[in-house]
Formats: sequence, C-alpha cells, structure tokens
Amino acid sequence: MADYQASTAEGSIKIDDLASLEGRVRDRMEAGAFGYIQGGAEAEWTMQENTAAFDHAQIVPRVLRDIQDPDLHTKLWDIDLKTPLIDAPAAAHGLAHVHGELETAAGVAAEGTIMSVSTYANESVPDIAKAGDGGAQFFQLYMSNDDGFNHWILDQAVASGYKAIVLTADASLGGYREADVKTGFQFPLPMVNLANYANNGTSGEGLNIMEIYARAKRNLSLADIEAVASYTNLPVIVKGVQSAPDATLAIGAGSKGIWVSNHGGRQLDGGPASFDVLPSIAAAVDHQVPIIFDSGIRRGEHAFKALASGADLVAFARPLFYGLNLGGVDGVRSVIQHFNQELTITMQLAGTKTIADIKQTQLLRKRIYDGTL
Amino acid sequence: MADYQASTAEGSIKIDDLASLEGRVRDRMEAGAFGYIQGGAEAEWTMQENTAAFDHAQIVPRVLRDIQDPDLHTKLWDIDLKTPLIDAPAAAHGLAHVHGELETAAGVAAEGTIMSVSTYANESVPDIAKAGDGGAQFFQLYMSNDDGFNHWILDQAVASGYKAIVLTADASLGGYREADVKTGFQFPLPMVNLANYANNGTSGEGLNIMEIYARAKRNLSLADIEAVASYTNLPVIVKGVQSAPDATLAIGAGSKGIWVSNHGGRQLDGGPASFDVLPSIAAAVDHQVPIIFDSGIRRGEHAFKALASGADLVAFARPLFYGLNLGGVDGVRSVIQHFNQELTITMQLAGTKTIADIKQTQLLRKRIYDGTL
Amino acid sequence: MADYQASTAEGSIKIDDLASLEGRVRDRMEAGAFGYIQGGAEAEWTMQENTAAFDHAQIVPRVLRDIQDPDLHTKLWDIDLKTPLIDAPAAAHGLAHVHGELETAAGVAAEGTIMSVSTYANESVPDIAKAGDGGAQFFQLYMSNDDGFNHWILDQAVASGYKAIVLTADASLGGYREADVKTGFQFPLPMVNLANYANNGTSGEGLNIMEIYARAKRNLSLADIEAVASYTNLPVIVKGVQSAPDATLAIGAGSKGIWVSNHGGRQLDGGPASFDVLPSIAAAVDHQVPIIFDSGIRRGEHAFKALASGADLVAFARPLFYGLNLGGVDGVRSVIQHFNQELTITMQLAGTKTIADIKQTQLLRKRIYDGTL
Amino acid sequence: MADYQASTAEGSIKIDDLASLEGRVRDRMEAGAFGYIQGGAEAEWTMQENTAAFDHAQIVPRVLRDIQDPDLHTKLWDIDLKTPLIDAPAAAHGLAHVHGELETAAGVAAEGTIMSVSTYANESVPDIAKAGDGGAQFFQLYMSNDDGFNHWILDQAVASGYKAIVLTADASLGGYREADVKTGFQFPLPMVNLANYANNGTSGEGLNIMEIYARAKRNLSLADIEAVASYTNLPVIVKGVQSAPDATLAIGAGSKGIWVSNHGGRQLDGGPASFDVLPSIAAAVDHQVPIIFDSGIRRGEHAFKALASGADLVAFARPLFYGLNLGGVDGVRSVIQHFNQELTITMQLAGTKTIADIKQTQLLRKRIYDGTL
Repeated sequence: MADYQASTAEGSIKIDDLASLEGRVRDRMEAGAFGYIQGGAEAEWTMQENTAAFDHAQIVPRVLRDIQDPDLHTKLWDIDLKTPLIDAPAAAHGLAHVHGELETAAGVAAEGTIMSVSTYANESVPDIAKAGDGGAQFFQLYMSNDDGFNHWILDQAVASGYKAIVLTADASLGGYREADVKTGFQFPLPMVNLANYANNGTSGEGLNIMEIYARAKRNLSLADIEAVASYTNLPVIVKGVQSAPDATLAIGAGSKGIWVSNHGGRQLDGGPASFDVLPSIAAAVDHQVPIIFDSGIRRGEHAFKALASGADLVAFARPLFYGLNLGGVDGVRSVIQHFNQELTITMQLAGTKTIADIKQTQLLRKRIYDGTL
Repeated sequence: MADYQASTAEGSIKIDDLASLEGRVRDRMEAGAFGYIQGGAEAEWTMQENTAAFDHAQIVPRVLRDIQDPDLHTKLWDIDLKTPLIDAPAAAHGLAHVHGELETAAGVAAEGTIMSVSTYANESVPDIAKAGDGGAQFFQLYMSNDDGFNHWILDQAVASGYKAIVLTADASLGGYREADVKTGFQFPLPMVNLANYANNGTSGEGLNIMEIYARAKRNLSLADIEAVASYTNLPVIVKGVQSAPDATLAIGAGSKGIWVSNHGGRQLDGGPASFDVLPSIAAAVDHQVPIIFDSGIRRGEHAFKALASGADLVAFARPLFYGLNLGGVDGVRSVIQHFNQELTITMQLAGTKTIADIKQTQLLRKRIYDGTL
Repeated sequence: MADYQASTAEGSIKIDDLASLEGRVRDRMEAGAFGYIQGGAEAEWTMQENTAAFDHAQIVPRVLRDIQDPDLHTKLWDIDLKTPLIDAPAAAHGLAHVHGELETAAGVAAEGTIMSVSTYANESVPDIAKAGDGGAQFFQLYMSNDDGFNHWILDQAVASGYKAIVLTADASLGGYREADVKTGFQFPLPMVNLANYANNGTSGEGLNIMEIYARAKRNLSLADIEAVASYTNLPVIVKGVQSAPDATLAIGAGSKGIWVSNHGGRQLDGGPASFDVLPSIAAAVDHQVPIIFDSGIRRGEHAFKALASGADLVAFARPLFYGLNLGGVDGVRSVIQHFNQELTITMQLAGTKTIADIKQTQLLRKRIYDGTL
Repeated sequence: MADYQASTAEGSIKIDDLASLEGRVRDRMEAGAFGYIQGGAEAEWTMQENTAAFDHAQIVPRVLRDIQDPDLHTKLWDIDLKTPLIDAPAAAHGLAHVHGELETAAGVAAEGTIMSVSTYANESVPDIAKAGDGGAQFFQLYMSNDDGFNHWILDQAVASGYKAIVLTADASLGGYREADVKTGFQFPLPMVNLANYANNGTSGEGLNIMEIYARAKRNLSLADIEAVASYTNLPVIVKGVQSAPDATLAIGAGSKGIWVSNHGGRQLDGGPASFDVLPSIAAAVDHQVPIIFDSGIRRGEHAFKALASGADLVAFARPLFYGLNLGGVDGVRSVIQHFNQELTITMQLAGTKTIADIKQTQLLRKRIYDGTL
C-alpha cells in the first residue's frame, strides 16, 4: 500500500462551479480512492436526492430593500465566523493530498471558519490543531468499542483546544457502498489516530470502510452524549439527525447542537434528502441549540436555502476534498471563497443583508411529502 | 425442444447489487427464456413502477437507540423463519438450471426460509419437497379447469407436507407479455406436474404461457378458497390481491393470508405499483391474517419499506431465479444472503432491532394518489 | 401531385403493440404525408400528454369475481356494436392506401363497429357508405363557409344512411403543425367531396391543411347544432369538447352526444390531455347523452381507463390509419382485433365482465391538477 | 476588440418555431457573445424552469363561441398597441447586428408595439428614438452609483419622448453567469451611453458584465421610484418583481406598473419560474396598475397563459435578439409576426376574441407549490 500516490498540488484554483470539481479530480485519483470519496450507499438514491432536493424550494427574490455588501459573518456560541459555511468531517484527507488534514486545516482557518476533524484522519489530532493555527476546530468522534481508545482520543481533542465534540450517530456500522465493493477499495494509508493508539492493533491501512466501522461502538445510545460531555467538558453535537423526535431526544440528553445530516448519502440509502427533513427538525429544535446542516450542498444557493430552512451553519466535505486535491491549502481556500462568492451574490439578489435576514426568509416550497415525522 | 441448454453452474456468487444480476444472466440464457423470466405485461409500466414506487416513501433513520446485531428472525403462524424474505412462486425453474426447483428448494431451505412451489414447476411436488429437506414449502395452485387435476395435485401437496396453499387469483388468463410475443417463446421443457397427470394430455412443452394459462380455471371465485381449504385442511393464502375490498372479501371467505402482488407486473399492465396499494390493504386486513408482499423487491431497503407498510413477509422471484442460474444451490443462497445483508444494514441504520420494530416504523410518504380504494 | 404512391398492401398484420405501428409506417410513406398523419400542433406537448396521461390513473385489479369471457358488446342509441372501440374521423385515408376510406370502411364494418367519415375524405360519401356494407357510419362535418356545400354534403350523408353527424367544433382554423411547416406538406390527392361540389373551385389537392381549413366556417356557434340537426333529422354529436361548461351548453343547444377530444393534439397545443378533462365533463353530462372519447388511445388499457372515467365509446384514428397502410381491409381489422384483445385481457384481469362493469369501476387517480373547469 | 464581426443580415426570415432560432444563431456568433445572450445564472435551473413552467397550467379550449378574426389590439395607458407582445430590454444589441438597437427599434415600431431600450445599449438614446420613428419606447434604467449619470441619461429619455422609465430592481449586482465565466466574455463594443457620458471614464468595452454592473447603484430602495418619477415626470415601472409584497410596496411607493420578471434567469438562480409567481402578484396588484410579464416566453401559447394569469403585456428579448441577428429590421419583424400568428391561432382555438377575453380565461393549474408568498 506504500506506493499510494497522493497529490502534491499547491495553489489557488479557478472554479467555474463546484459540481465540476468532481470531474476534474476523477482523472487525477486512483479509482478506488476516488470511488470511496465520491460514492454513496447502495443505489445512491439518497445521495443524489440530497442535492436534487434543493429544487424542492425556491428563493423568492425581494427587491428595492436598500441592500449592499451582504455580510456573511456569524457566530456559533462565542466563536466568530467569517462565513456560515464550515468544513464537514471526512476521513482520510491523505487520499486527496500528501499533507492531508494539515493543509485542510490551514486553508479552513485562513478563511475564518470551522474545521471538523475525523477520528479517521491521516494526521494526528495535535498536528491538525497546530496546522489550524488558532482556527476553531471540532473533533468528530466515531466511538470505539474500546473505551480506552475513546478516552485517549478525547483527551487529545481537549488538550488541542477543540471547541466541540461531534458525536457521529449515523454510522454504527458502515453503509453498503457499492463503489467500494466494486473496486475492492482498502485504505492505502494508515489512520494515524488508530495507529498511534497502542492497544488498537491496526492502523486501518489495508482495511475497507466496513472493517473500520466494525471496530466502532454499535449500540450507541442517548447516554453516550452525557458520557462524552462530562468526560471532556466540551459541548457535544450529535451528528446524523434526520428526524424531529431524535433532535428532541438528543437535546434532552444533553446535546448542545444538532447536526442534520445523512452522511452525504453514504450510510442509509432509501432515506429522505437531508434538506427535506430540515424544516421539521428546525421546528422541533426551536432555537434551543444551534443546527448544523450538511449533505448535498454544492452551491451558495443551497446554503441559503438550508439557512432559510432552519440551519445555523452549513457544512460540506466533498468539495473541500476536491479543492485539497487540486491545490492544497490554497485549493481549500478557493473552494470556500467560491462558496462565499455565490452565497454573497444570492444574498444580494434575494434582498438579504445578513445571515439573520436569511433565517427569516420564507422559501416557496413544493409539496413533496404528505406529512413530516 | 430437447436441446434446451440450461445452466449447470454451481457455487456461491459475488453480488454487487441484485439489480445487476439481470444483466449477468441475460448473456447466458436463450433470448426467449430470458424474455419470459424478465419481461412484464404490455408496456411494462406496472412492472417498472413496482420497483420505482419504493422511492415513493422514505425511511427516516433513527439514531442513538442502543441497537446492535439486528435480528431477522420472524414467524409465520408456527413456522420459524430466519428472515422475512421468502421465495415467491415462479414457473419453470428448469429454464434457469438443469436441476430447476430441486436446487432452489435446497438453497432456500438452507437459508431457513420458505420456498413457494408453482404448479408449473419442472420438477414434481414430492421431489421438490424432498430436495427442500424439511424446509417449509408452500404450494402455489393455478386452479385447472379440470377438477381432477386440482385434486390430484393438491393431494400431492398435502402428502408432501406443504404448509399452505397459495391460490393464484390474478392469472385467470395470461397477461399480454410482449417479450414472449416478440420472441415467440414456447416452453422448451415439460412441466412435470402437467406431464404426470394422465388425463391432462400435455406437459406444457411447446406451448406458450397464454396457452398454458388457457387450461386454468378462469371464473375463479371466493368459493374456491373454501373448496381448497376444506379439501386440503391447509391454510389458503390468496395471491394477487391489490385492493382493500378484495382482502376483506377473501378473509371473509376463509383465506388465512393475503398475498399482495401484481404478479411482478406480468398480468395487468396499467395497474398501480404493488407497494402503492399495500398500506390501504394492510389497514383493511388489520392483522386478522398475515400479509405477504411481492412485486418489485430488489433491495433490502425495499423489504424494509414493505414491512413498514404492513407486510409480514416479503417475497421475490426473479433475483432467486438469476441466482439459481448463476450458481445453483449456492447461487440461491448468495441471493438470500445478500438480501439479508442489505436488510440487516438498513435495520441497524434505521434504528430497528427486530422485524416487529420495522413494522412499527412510520415512513415518510410522498403524495402520489388522491385517495385509496 | 399525380405521382403520389400510396400503399397497395392487403392482408392481416402481426401486431406486437399498436405504438410500434408508427415506426413501421414511417419508413413506408413519403415524409410529408407521414408527418401530416403523425404530427401534432406546435411543441406537441398536448399530443404527447394525451397518451402519457393514461398513467395518471391506475386500474386496481379485482380478483375472485367469477369472471370469464368478458363481453365487449355495447350499444350507442339503438346501434349494436361488437366493441366500444370505434373509428375516429381523419382526413385523407388516400395517403395511407390507394383505396383509402373504402378499405377502412370495409374493415371497420367487418369488425362490427362505427366508421367516422371525414368531410375531407379522398372517397365520396356514397362510395364509402357502400364499402361499409351496412355497417354504422357517422359523418364528420367540417362546416364550410359556403352553406351550399354544407347542404350538399349533408344531403349525401342522409341519403347514404349515416347514423349521426359529428360536428367538428375544435377546428375553426388549423392548428400550427410544425411537421407540415417543416416539410411544406401539401395534399397530393384530391378530396373528393370538395372536388365533386361544383361551386367550390378546389379539390384541396396542392393545398396545405391551413389552406383547407381556411374555407371552413370560422365563427361556429351553438346555433349550428340545431341548424344541422333540423336540416338532417339526424343526431348531432359535437366533437372537440374539453370542458364541462361546453358540454352542458352543447347539450342544451341540442347535441345528442358529446365527443371529448382535442383532435389528437393537432389543434391547440398547451391544452390538457383529453383524458385529464374527461371526468369533469362526464360529471357534467351525467348520462344525459352518450360520451365518445378520443385522443391518445394506444392500448386496450387506455380504452378501459377512458370507459371507467365516463366515456361510452372510445375512438382512435392514427392506429387504424397505420393498419390501413400496412394491410388494407385486413390491416384495419388486425388493428381493431388487437385493441379488442388487449381490452378483453384487461377486463378479465381487472375483474369486469361487461362494458357496464367497466363504467362502474373506480380508478386510482394521481393528483395532477388543483381543480377542474 | 475592434474586430468583432457582427451580423449584417437583412431580410425577413422563415421561422418554424422560435425555440429553434437559438440553434440557428449559435453557429453564427462568436462563442462568448452567444453565451452572454443565451446563458443564465449558475446552474440555469431558474432559466430552464421559466419556460418549463408554462406546462404547469393548461388552456382548456372553449368551442362554438362564435369567434373569428381574434383581435390582438390592446392599450397600455393611452398607448395603442397592435399586440400585447412587446420588446423586453436587453443590453448590447450590437452583438447581434452591426446596427444594433437602431434596427430593433425600426422593426418593433413597424409592428406597432413597444421597444424597451437598455442603459447598456450600443446606440444612443436619441438615435434609437429616431430609428423607432414614432413608435412607443420605454427606457430601462440601470441606476448608476453616479447620480450625474442618472440625470444625464434620464434627461435624454425625456427629451426623446420615451413613454416610461423601467427601473431595474433585480440587478443590484450581476448574477453569477457561468457561460461568461467559462468563455471569459468581455464586451467587445462600446456601450454608447456610458461612452458619451464624459465623467464615466469607461465605455464598457473590454469589461465583463459583473464589472459593468459593479458601477450600478447597489442599495436600490423604494425611494428611488419617486426620485426617478419626480425627476422625469414619466411613469416608472419597477422591473424584476417576483413577489406580491414587493408589488404592493412598489405601488405604494409610486410605481405606475409592475414588471414581473426574473431577468430571464440571468440573476438569481434557485428562484421560482416567473410564470409560477405571476398569479399571486396579480392578485396583490388587483388592477391598480398594469402588469408586464417576461422570462421564458417562447410561444404564443406562453403569452396566452401569462395574460390569463394576470399580465397585461408580455415581453421577450432573446427571440428578438436572434431575429435581429438573422435578418435585421425584417428579422425582428418576422419574430413578432410569428409570435402574433401563434397567439392568434391560440386565441381562436381557445375561444377568445380579444385580449380582454384572454384575461378572463381560467387556466387548469397543476399544484406545484404548497402556498404563495
């Protein structure tokens, strides 16, 4: 596996639109690695619906409202952000670039937003924190069935100054990802956190994602929220919420944020688009805690629609991964800048000056479902 | 016709997804036989809608529910099953494999689930029962216009220990299947039950499906349920129900189960997807008798959605037929195992531990129809 | 124009499905003539929607209802018909076959149903009546702006024993048919009724359809119903009704039948599918007079759905035209027989024994429109 | 840039349908210029939906209503028009033809309808007025961030006898138009109004559209309506309204007309089709002021549907631009004549004699959205 050739590209990239990055990266990566990044579960219906669903609601532009220079700044708790667009967690940035998460962290920090670091990173927690250079970082925990590992890795997140623990709730086992099955993809690089933990016995290298996930704690429960929170004294955000009841239960169990996500369509196929369930979840959360949204975001207008449907922050992973592959730190920055540019134009043309204005915008919604859960 | 070359393959098969089996088998079979298996009635609208309709309802994943190792075991009456996925009846397994229903029976039994044996099998009822080696089998009756045949074949089913008689209600004549019309398909092999019955005068060999069905009893009525039940002392399950009133009438007339099916889109074209009528039938049945569902199932998620819409068991035929063609007994087993694997993953990710949990799951449904019948 | 080569084919034809006839005829006809027959108005949205709309409602099959040998016989007034499927009027059958309407009439009569003869036929009214050999015929009147012509042609229809006058209401001028515009199509053959009327000054030969229609009476009104009825003492059926108010008005003005049609999508583009407006018209008509339906029928199931939505008879033109081209009298018969076969199978599988049973069948309807007019 | 080769074609053109003009022009123009004209914002969803949305409502034809010779004449205020179809404003007609707006103005005037002249024209306001030869013209103002320019250009519009000022409200900055980004399009010709204004410092030549728009006043507000109205003593029409509240606010602030438009899908992508929001705006306007509608009109039937949904006039730009390219003055006339021909046929077949009749026509609408804003 030692001969995996990751990108060494550095430099800002010209972006026509973010969806086109996928095609540009496809030709530069080993097929198995690309399939792992790009693919979704089973028939990929949910993955495709994630993006298509943004056409289920339209932004009605408002005019003559004395708007100029829309302002993307926002806050999460006491964290100041230059944009509501943040980095969603993803495993193995080393597949995209030789310096993996280190360059992602540097690029994200330079753009003044949040980096979410996966348990399955190819770089260590402290190294990524250092590369982030003071930028806010979240640690995404895949709880292990080995509590020793959980404590060991959470200790590092605390020590490294992470702002929150993102508790992954939707991956108690791996989705059936056909791209990986077809290519026979195995991780060609070690996952450093696994490798560094002495008792774990594997670095993940040479395993497939289902084998990796097999070491995760399967019977995750609401009690895990409080367990992580009390161990770390950090806010816990439950990631992978797709229903109003789960949001309510998670908040009741101590979750300080709700991350609405279906894992980019990589876990349960045949579930709804993440955007289609957001309004009912937002109604249940009712501003008790912040909502972070991901799954399918490829445009500034998508981010606008998510914010107008109840999200406080909007996250994305694949486009950043492609930017990292095409240009390292500056490629990551180019992607965030492009998102920001599209969101800024959308805000100006929609007649909204601030993120708060977007949140008060009512979209024109198609009737897709008969009810909500 | 004696030169029909059926598969002799034996061995487990690698399955990426069940839908792709069709393409793999297409190249291995004589076009007429393949068209007979794969095709549907007329424009195949209903056939295609059968599978497409599973996208009319979505599974909303639930998280943090302390689930691991979902359990597929279930029961039908006093029959213990390792999975709610059972074999749906289909004619002429000999087209797929030289040992036809014998290997299907062995594979299905090995996976701990139910084999449904068609009147139009290429192997005899006692031989299939023997091959099933103690596994539960249902006998699917196409009532003949010759009551002597009906008694003769039901006697065999009773003698062979079959658990139920599946009374085919939706095939009082053959659907207009264009694939068969275009290829001029005639059965190249004898249907052993027809051949063995002295007075019948034909084995089916050299006839097309419409000619076969022409010997069936056309004016089937509710009275046939009781006639079969009292003759056999076995529970009768009416197969081919697509409306709530028919379910109610059938139960009133003595049916001990309702098999919701449109014959895989092979009979009436222009009817609804079987999945789209399931909820209204389930409401009418209201747990008085078990519901078996088929038509269009190609994924574990489809099975989940059918169970969550009122089905107690879920049946499928074409994928098993393809598995039989590609690997005999072990090919059949591979197909069932793949279905079980997908269903298990779906259960875990949906937050359901048991089949009973699935049945209590509410799907997020699109509004397709204005009302229900 | 004298060198137009029409088909001389005679003999029954093998039909897989009626939709495929179009492709078979395309290769046999001069492009302009084929385009005239096959094409619709403008973007052909309405033409295509006419057929697609049959998927807006599904037949829910009923089982175990003691049905065999469904009976297609029906009546219109005192006319006994072997099938509810009748011939819709169409101009210029001479484009399809050298003997034009004469062979259509013979074929339709042999199948025991109604021939509708267009004003713009290539054969004379008495000749077509004679070829019909006692079969019921309707005369479709395109009212001329020359009342002398109207009287002259109606006299012939009466003298020839026609059963009704079909008053064309939806063609007060020609639709914008792009196929004709693109090919520059001009009728290559004389329209015999025009040619035989001394004062008319044209046979239609060398004109395009818009020029033909330009001689029609444009300001048709409700008063024309009574004018034609009193002149002929025949029942008048208004053809081209697409709204409940027009049906009510026409009946009030003396119409003895309502022909629901949008002229096969050849007149107004951007109007609804004829099938989608049928239920609201049927509700308004409420059995005061019979309803004939056309536009888009290509399957027996379509006919079933139209009958179940309020039609008493179902008409079609293009498939008959193709049958005429491919096989003359017997080709016409093959088309009707195929329709009848599909309808018979649909009836049996739907659990309906008679046309009256179909009419009492409730379809499962999708919600397409917000209301009805 | 001096070597841009614009069309010099003169003469009427044969038009099969207006949608096909795009393809004919594509091959005749420099790719950047064509992309600028043809393209829309971002994914072009809104642009495509603009035209597709006309299939969201159908015209139900009415028959036997004593209609002939439908009359297209209408009025806006005291301006007599031969047709409700008017020219929508568009920048830089010089890209299409060497004489640019001069020939558009002549063609539009010859057809008895309104020319809308853009601030970003390639010919001067007085020259275009002169070329219009007495025909009614509107001046479309892109307010500059330089009030001197605004006054200078409005003085010319008043002096040239323009009938109204169209205040562009939906372009406070340029939409993200990917075609321009991909081709790197820069205007190859000077915008004469910019060039002639001494203090402006640029003619627009060599700039892209975002750079042009960057000089526009960004913080447009309701107060600008009154400012323009009082300065010019001309009626102000706010262009770019997509919501009922904005229409109400604009009228309250002095707007004498509401121009419902989304800029042909060139500004905010992810907004609704302009046709889909028209009914709710018309309900709010309630005949207080006239409504002009544009965005997506490519057929006479589209114009009919817009008029039946609340519009008083219907505008279009791209088809005229293509006509100008293909035939100069007479090409422009051919396009208007074709629109008029289609609208006339639609009126006759729909049973409407006047524009007032169309306005009282109720369409059969699909349910697309759950509510209206």
